[in-house]
Amino acid sequence: MRAWQFVGTHKPFERVDIEEPTAGPGKVVIDVKAAGLCHSDVGILEDEKWLSTMKELPVVPGHETAGVISEVGEGVTDWKVGDRVAVWPLAEIMGYMVNGAWEDRAEVSTDALVAIPDEVSFAQAAAATDAGMTSVGALSTAGVEAGMKVGVIGFGGLGQIGARVAKLRGADVYVAEVNESIWDRIREAGATKVAKSITEFADVELDVIIDYAGFGVTTADALKAVKSSGGGRVVQVGMGKLESTIDTYSLILGRKQLHGSMGGSKNDIEETMRYMASGDLKPTITEIDFEQIPDGIQQLMDGTSVGRLVAKVAD
Amino acid sequence: MRAWQFVGTHKPFERVDIEEPTAGPGKVVIDVKAAGLCHSDVGILEDEKWLSTMKELPVVPGHETAGVISEVGEGVTDWKVGDRVAVWPLAEIMGYMVNGAWEDRAEVSTDALVAIPDEVSFAQAAAATDAGMTSVGALSTAGVEAGMKVGVIGFGGLGQIGARVAKLRGADVYVAEVNESIWDRIREAGATKVAKSITEFADVELDVIIDYAGFGVTTADALKAVKSSGGGRVVQVGMGKLESTIDTYSLILGRKQLHGSMGGSKNDIEETMRYMASGDLKPTITEIDFEQIPDGIQQLMDGTSVGRLVAKVAD
Repeated sequence: MRAWQFVGTHKPFERVDIEEPTAGPGKVVIDVKAAGLCHSDVGILEDEKWLSTMKELPVVPGHETAGVISEVGEGVTDWKVGDRVAVWPLAEIMGYMVNGAWEDRAEVSTDALVAIPDEVSFAQAAAATDAGMTSVGALSTAGVEAGMKVGVIGFGGLGQIGARVAKLRGADVYVAEVNESIWDRIREAGATKVAKSITEFADVELDVIIDYAGFGVTTADALKAVKSSGGGRVVQVGMGKLESTIDTYSLILGRKQLHGSMGGSKNDIEETMRYMASGDLKPTITEIDFEQIPDGIQQLMDGTSVGRLVAKVAD
Repeated sequence: MRAWQFVGTHKPFERVDIEEPTAGPGKVVIDVKAAGLCHSDVGILEDEKWLSTMKELPVVPGHETAGVISEVGEGVTDWKVGDRVAVWPLAEIMGYMVNGAWEDRAEVSTDALVAIPDEVSFAQAAAATDAGMTSVGALSTAGVEAGMKVGVIGFGGLGQIGARVAKLRGADVYVAEVNESIWDRIREAGATKVAKSITEFADVELDVIIDYAGFGVTTADALKAVKSSGGGRVVQVGMGKLESTIDTYSLILGRKQLHGSMGGSKNDIEETMRYMASGDLKPTITEIDFEQIPDGIQQLMDGTSVGRLVAKVAD
């Protein structure tokens, strides 16, 4: 069957033909219908530190997976051939510790399976497993619920989902986005207010702020802007810059909190797909062909991709 | 009656005679027996920003208060003349928003009262209301409980209480203290290990770290050293330096948390006095005379004070 393999840092992905997997005990094989491309797939090409997340090379990348079950292993009773499923990538660290989605068929543990609602396409479901999970997971880390005042920094791939789902959860959403050309789109997504910097909302007494950008100063600004009456929480997701100089005086006096958030739960994926199914959440997705994955990666490197890139592996 | 007053930044405290308070509705008057001196009493002399915490000048400073009730106001039924009481300073922001402990008698809201156990001296009780409350309050913010591995940075006035009470709560305590001359004392307090930097405990996978020093790099080191398996928590109390440059990469990947902590609850004061009563907690206290308060403040400025300074107002 077809697959793309990661063979080492600074080396191009290799298009290979490998043996088909069979379903071991407690596992299923799925025909992969859609496989997302992510900035971390660029990361593994450029930075040796990612090697520590892998058991052995070569490995098939791809941690956004949606497809149809084509075989069930011994002891599997809750799932059957023909079920449409998305894959929670953190169960087995798919695409790193075990082979990922950039292949025709993938063996997956049932622990990782999430049913796809009928109304949700395979491409949407794939995007729900990481872009969705990570955005919504940050809302869960932040404890976002109805009636809260929520700040969102950055309306990119993750921020657009986070801001929208915060609104759907019943929160008042305040978005900081430097790119004014998309402010209308942000208002359409339900934001109460839009500004260039989160500090412009300092008088709003935001209960939580989620920083999907992560440019160092955004973290520091968020900690300054979040409410100072105790328990104000900043959740850090974006890694645009890997350090931040924060004001500990305001942190202490305001009894504020800073939480790192990475990934999310199966619940976060299910919540994302529920809003996709109802039509309330429509993240921009660009579909490409399986054979075009390296072109897609180049688009991510160049910053020219539009919305989430998802490769169609099979129809 | 005798009182010391703060009359303005960069001006010495003034020794005055003012009118005695009477107990308003829901309030009591206490004969002050012990009144602590704190670094923030130096702060108000040196830094104008503290003026924002005060309603009007002059004001009597002192937010560590212990004494005996000498009058009860209308509607007070839970307390009676003769009761030995300590005062939770955050109920009325005593010493800032209302007159504090550096006077013969003080009017206090019953919301602020905490009973002093028989075995606890007035001087100990005074130290329990801020040094104790703040140290133990940080443990509460950190969620320290039996079986946890707890890092403590700095074994000064607050850290010595924090480390000891963490041990008394049943935690394994790892202390980082640059001053090697007090390492024996730290081991006697029950610390499992002592080192110069918290980073030396990086392989211990500490559940929480409380930074009582707060020199910027200590916050950053604590965030690096705390466990990276999710939920590791650093609590910031010390304000030695008012900013810190932190590694957001490790924060995000390890799903770590940084919490500012200031003050504490009446429960934290009660817990402190319980351990004082049992003899398990014996923070160093130096008693001075009421008339020597300015000398005590000078000792705090010079860094020559030993343990917590408590002024005896009356016997």
